[in-house]
Amino acid sequence: MDSLGIGLIGTGFMGKCHALAYGSVKAVFGDVPDIQLEVLCDVPADKAEALGNQFGFARSTDNWEDLIADPKVDIVCITTPNKVHKEMAMAALDAGKHVHLEKPMALTLQDSTAMLELASKTGAKTIVGYNYLHNPAIAHARKLISDGAIGRIVHFRGMVDEDYQADPDLAWTWRATREGAGLGTLGDLGCHLISLAVAMVGPIESLIAETKTVHVTRPMGDGSDEHRPVENEDIASALLTFANGVHGVFSTSRSAWGRKSYISFEVHGTEGMITFDQERMNELRLYQNKGPLSEQGFKTLLSGPAHPPYGQFVPAPGHQLGFNDLKVIEANELLRAIQDDRPAVPSFSEALHFEEVIHAIAQSGATGKPVKL
Amino acid sequence: MDSLGIGLIGTGFMGKCHALAYGSVKAVFGDVPDIQLEVLCDVPADKAEALGNQFGFARSTDNWEDLIADPKVDIVCITTPNKVHKEMAMAALDAGKHVHLEKPMALTLQDSTAMLELASKTGAKTIVGYNYLHNPAIAHARKLISDGAIGRIVHFRGMVDEDYQADPDLAWTWRATREGAGLGTLGDLGCHLISLAVAMVGPIESLIAETKTVHVTRPMGDGSDEHRPVENEDIASALLTFANGVHGVFSTSRSAWGRKSYISFEVHGTEGMITFDQERMNELRLYQNKGPLSEQGFKTLLSGPAHPPYGQFVPAPGHQLGFNDLKVIEANELLRAIQDDRPAVPSFSEALHFEEVIHAIAQSGATGKPVKL
Amino acid sequence: MDSLGIGLIGTGFMGKCHALAYGSVKAVFGDVPDIQLEVLCDVPADKAEALGNQFGFARSTDNWEDLIADPKVDIVCITTPNKVHKEMAMAALDAGKHVHLEKPMALTLQDSTAMLELASKTGAKTIVGYNYLHNPAIAHARKLISDGAIGRIVHFRGMVDEDYQADPDLAWTWRATREGAGLGTLGDLGCHLISLAVAMVGPIESLIAETKTVHVTRPMGDGSDEHRPVENEDIASALLTFANGVHGVFSTSRSAWGRKSYISFEVHGTEGMITFDQERMNELRLYQNKGPLSEQGFKTLLSGPAHPPYGQFVPAPGHQLGFNDLKVIEANELLRAIQDDRPAVPSFSEALHFEEVIHAIAQSGATGKPVKL
Amino acid sequence: MDSLGIGLIGTGFMGKCHALAYGSVKAVFGDVPDIQLEVLCDVPADKAEALGNQFGFARSTDNWEDLIADPKVDIVCITTPNKVHKEMAMAALDAGKHVHLEKPMALTLQDSTAMLELASKTGAKTIVGYNYLHNPAIAHARKLISDGAIGRIVHFRGMVDEDYQADPDLAWTWRATREGAGLGTLGDLGCHLISLAVAMVGPIESLIAETKTVHVTRPMGDGSDEHRPVENEDIASALLTFANGVHGVFSTSRSAWGRKSYISFEVHGTEGMITFDQERMNELRLYQNKGPLSEQGFKTLLSGPAHPPYGQFVPAPGHQLGFNDLKVIEANELLRAIQDDRPAVPSFSEALHFEEVIHAIAQSGATGKPVKL
Repeated sequence: MDSLGIGLIGTGFMGKCHALAYGSVKAVFGDVPDIQLEVLCDVPADKAEALGNQFGFARSTDNWEDLIADPKVDIVCITTPNKVHKEMAMAALDAGKHVHLEKPMALTLQDSTAMLELASKTGAKTIVGYNYLHNPAIAHARKLISDGAIGRIVHFRGMVDEDYQADPDLAWTWRATREGAGLGTLGDLGCHLISLAVAMVGPIESLIAETKTVHVTRPMGDGSDEHRPVENEDIASALLTFANGVHGVFSTSRSAWGRKSYISFEVHGTEGMITFDQERMNELRLYQNKGPLSEQGFKTLLSGPAHPPYGQFVPAPGHQLGFNDLKVIEANELLRAIQDDRPAVPSFSEALHFEEVIHAIAQSGATGKPVKL
Repeated sequence: MDSLGIGLIGTGFMGKCHALAYGSVKAVFGDVPDIQLEVLCDVPADKAEALGNQFGFARSTDNWEDLIADPKVDIVCITTPNKVHKEMAMAALDAGKHVHLEKPMALTLQDSTAMLELASKTGAKTIVGYNYLHNPAIAHARKLISDGAIGRIVHFRGMVDEDYQADPDLAWTWRATREGAGLGTLGDLGCHLISLAVAMVGPIESLIAETKTVHVTRPMGDGSDEHRPVENEDIASALLTFANGVHGVFSTSRSAWGRKSYISFEVHGTEGMITFDQERMNELRLYQNKGPLSEQGFKTLLSGPAHPPYGQFVPAPGHQLGFNDLKVIEANELLRAIQDDRPAVPSFSEALHFEEVIHAIAQSGATGKPVKL
Repeated sequence: MDSLGIGLIGTGFMGKCHALAYGSVKAVFGDVPDIQLEVLCDVPADKAEALGNQFGFARSTDNWEDLIADPKVDIVCITTPNKVHKEMAMAALDAGKHVHLEKPMALTLQDSTAMLELASKTGAKTIVGYNYLHNPAIAHARKLISDGAIGRIVHFRGMVDEDYQADPDLAWTWRATREGAGLGTLGDLGCHLISLAVAMVGPIESLIAETKTVHVTRPMGDGSDEHRPVENEDIASALLTFANGVHGVFSTSRSAWGRKSYISFEVHGTEGMITFDQERMNELRLYQNKGPLSEQGFKTLLSGPAHPPYGQFVPAPGHQLGFNDLKVIEANELLRAIQDDRPAVPSFSEALHFEEVIHAIAQSGATGKPVKL
Repeated sequence: MDSLGIGLIGTGFMGKCHALAYGSVKAVFGDVPDIQLEVLCDVPADKAEALGNQFGFARSTDNWEDLIADPKVDIVCITTPNKVHKEMAMAALDAGKHVHLEKPMALTLQDSTAMLELASKTGAKTIVGYNYLHNPAIAHARKLISDGAIGRIVHFRGMVDEDYQADPDLAWTWRATREGAGLGTLGDLGCHLISLAVAMVGPIESLIAETKTVHVTRPMGDGSDEHRPVENEDIASALLTFANGVHGVFSTSRSAWGRKSYISFEVHGTEGMITFDQERMNELRLYQNKGPLSEQGFKTLLSGPAHPPYGQFVPAPGHQLGFNDLKVIEANELLRAIQDDRPAVPSFSEALHFEEVIHAIAQSGATGKPVKL
């Protein structure tokens, strides 16, 4: 494989993150195909052009369909608002392109299912932006679990919070609508935690949940007295049953003051425990029932070259990876999947399960009834 | 009031803790009645005598009814196994004594209710050993909340864990039986967390829960192959609705490796957050949406004289209270209630609510149905 | 030995701490002599009487010489201001009493040396209030070191800070004078850290130091414009050479905002490291170069019954000892030394070394020259 | 300015870091000149070619003089072993190129001084790889200090440790020699801490120090019994006097088990304290003597867009920068200096002071005498 061309739609938070990732993935990993940053798409055209120049893309456009149609584009990165994910991803797949899609896949499960079906037909590689999965600390947690370091898993608890919707005076936006944003904190944050829960314990089978809108209306932010309703949840919690019988607890809030990127979980085993918090993403905490009681305790494992692929970034331990580095590992995963003609992980297939779970939580929250997946 | 005589039944973990508390409460607080350690009861008699001497009691006995009948005993401290709490407490109340009872009140809610009814009739003062409530850090959290420091409360999460039942090879004991112990982790640990949840947010109105027995049988520990069933729960989790509409999450495990006295919670408000963990019982963490964004962050408040009654123990901040000090504050609360002829907190009345909640969790866990309190 | 009578001089911070300790040491430890709280001394007499009643002493006095002369007093506890330590301790020794003295021993090394000489002659037991030495976590650190858990010791660093003199506007007191207080932060805080350094590494042989007075004058606090000079140091730092060749670093400040009881050190060995901070006095951190690199990390050891004598206070791990509990262990050490007719540790002999070190630091700070001990 | 060409000498730890930084600095910051990765140099030639391809350089060479002579190269990045820094930097300056040099500048102060002199003559921009200075958390600490957030600075303490030379069995290498490596831990780690000390407090005027070689010989690692001497220090500590009179403490070890990238310091002021640890590089801890005592405590400030230039990387707080991101900010600083024709910081001029300090520490350690700078 000589080289792969990248077309990136969107230039916001995750758009820039993708641009940086594809700009450095070859330098970081080496043994992946060469990358050409071909086309950047945003509106208006001059913004696309300016950022195309900044990010190092060869061309820019304000027409995403042109980007997808571009013969030099092999991988289409979609980082636009959730409500247009489906249309763009379907078009890219139809055009025979690989798809690197930001999460969540779509606003509804029907849409996500349709996307997965199409991807299965085309044989293109897909990956969804569950970037926290790619943390070397998380990879090491999975390895420890599969090596039996904490015995049989018996319990999982996870929490994911931010505070971007904590301020009661924050103005109403499309984020507050079902039509614009779909789910609330579940779609923004909750699905990330589910991706980690599944990585640690396995698929989820059933659940019962509660959801809560903390700020039921928001001011229009235009100086008027008008308030509009917030249609989606600020907080959601659930009791989970995993397919292997493990009982779990899940909770998320987008209105949790002080929490900036709090993705925290604990995995309880019959011989130990693992805990993690994304706000200290280079640390894994491990307790093992081993050795004399007087020397048992939680051990803080600082990420290092012993935790691949950390060493691709820095050859010395404890030097810290950052948020943007996770996207580089994610891009690497897609490139290798293409190179080796095997599925990337998490593809649309795994991602669909994560999103089934958050929709099930929303449904259970609305109905007060348990949901089986 | 000249002085109050103490009769203590039980000399184990909490028995010694009570002995130490009543032995020092006057020295610590000063303006409480004098204390006389009158009678210590345990079986056999020589153990009671030896420990009576060690703990500084005037007399000892192996007959708890004699202790209760002793005219010099004003306060009966009950630290025996849960299943005899009711009989002893009822007898003490019948004898007109004040009762300092370890938690949980009894094995069943019917028993606890009967105890509360009798206490209401006699007019004696009662207090139940929800000792974590008496931490100056917790008192300060309550003050912050009632002062509005974190705005309107919108969410609560709590976890309480230990690992004394984590080892799969641990031998079967009466703790594993409904008849001997009643509830499992809910009775041992869960009720403490409920006491804190109620202190932070208010009474609980309804819930849905799951319970799990991790180790379904245990070996007899006698070298034989025999295993007996574990009849009560190792893990329990619940989604809570407080009377004021706040949504909460609760989870407890007695099989959580590495957790030694983990009683951890977070209170989310519209203007800030408070978090606490009993394993660092001298620290309260506070986030407030105040001042420039660049200087916002969780603040660690180290307990000190600014957090009464810390200063009764040490006049300098940061010097650390310990577990046993909480029981001294609890004893002080009962003594002041007697002195001022007002209810102690938490009396049988508050404790009954805590225990209604854990029984409701057990019931919901057994039936899979929500429970209204 | 039937019982030992206690005479306590002083009722302030450490006075109350002693009263609580001797009031509970028998109950906590059991196999020590019975304790009788005989005489409490303070001025004026009514204060002594009131606090004698509160603390449970049989008698009170405003004349410390009477206390020492009291035939029922076997142990004289001295918790008065530093400048009267010598006179009281010498008198107590002359009267054949055991002495439990708060640190530092005296204002000058000459005085301390005289006190040690007299103690050696009388054969009485002495102990000096280096209470942090008695922390089970510290005892465990010593055990780990002597067991070789971190290999050969190669480096020590310690810091001890509080902030009681941090405020520039704080009023001038006798604490600021050479005559009243002797040393500044070295006498208040520094000597505690030296006691821990010696416990971890061994005696100190030479050093070079700097001292600094941050607030060179202080207002009189009487509304006037008058300021008086601060005669002793707010900050002191030193490079230490231990007798075994280990190089160490020492620093202390009584003007360190935010530090409430920060006594922090790290011991570097050829196979691991131990760190400790008194503000989290129930935690010891241990790193060992053992096992796979991917699982190496600092382990947090929560104090528990595996770390004697923690279990005398609470039979369950992680439940937390407090500051006052350390004095109980210290009292226990003295009682056992008396019972077994062996020296208590740290007696005047060990304490003299600690204080030689802080005086050497002060001397080096004043002269800018290294000091050999 | 149309664009700037990069020539990079060295492809190891810091070489790759530079390649990544110059590969993404335009994408991250936008308003800097375009970057062309022109020439990569390493030996042998095929390694240079392979890595040149991986890192995205247009050409490669095994001859660093050719790289410097290349007319398309505007900035020469030097990441080779310390002992060739001088020759390469002088050649680059002679050729009129800007120089981005890894620390330390050279093996001796004479060499560094010569380099600074030449740089002053050519007018080229220079920057030295004191990358930790560019952390947004550090920038914010500086801002807080200059805004008076912690009052007048009165004390500084810093420690910098790793454990790459902790293992007694580690084989001898050129790092152990004066000729190959110059200083030991002072050159590798110590100078980073000095750069931060100076950033926080200002230049250093005098010091007294001790140095220690923990492992005085090392095995050859070839199976033989031969050991060779370690000629430079494993540990160094110093008492510092800053030009403004502030007293400081400094300590460094390259043999500190468990420390992976521990660059830790605390700045004491008359109204507060700031602390930092590079192993948690996205956190700054701030204590201020403000507001009620009961709510005072150390606040953990998680880096975010309120701490520029964090927001160039991620628009949401708490998402974490990594080690490699600091080099991007450093590259940005050099590019802006070139663009605006102003000195970069830290140029050879500031770096020379940092290195004067570590050489003074080494000298004082060797002679036992204070050194004035």
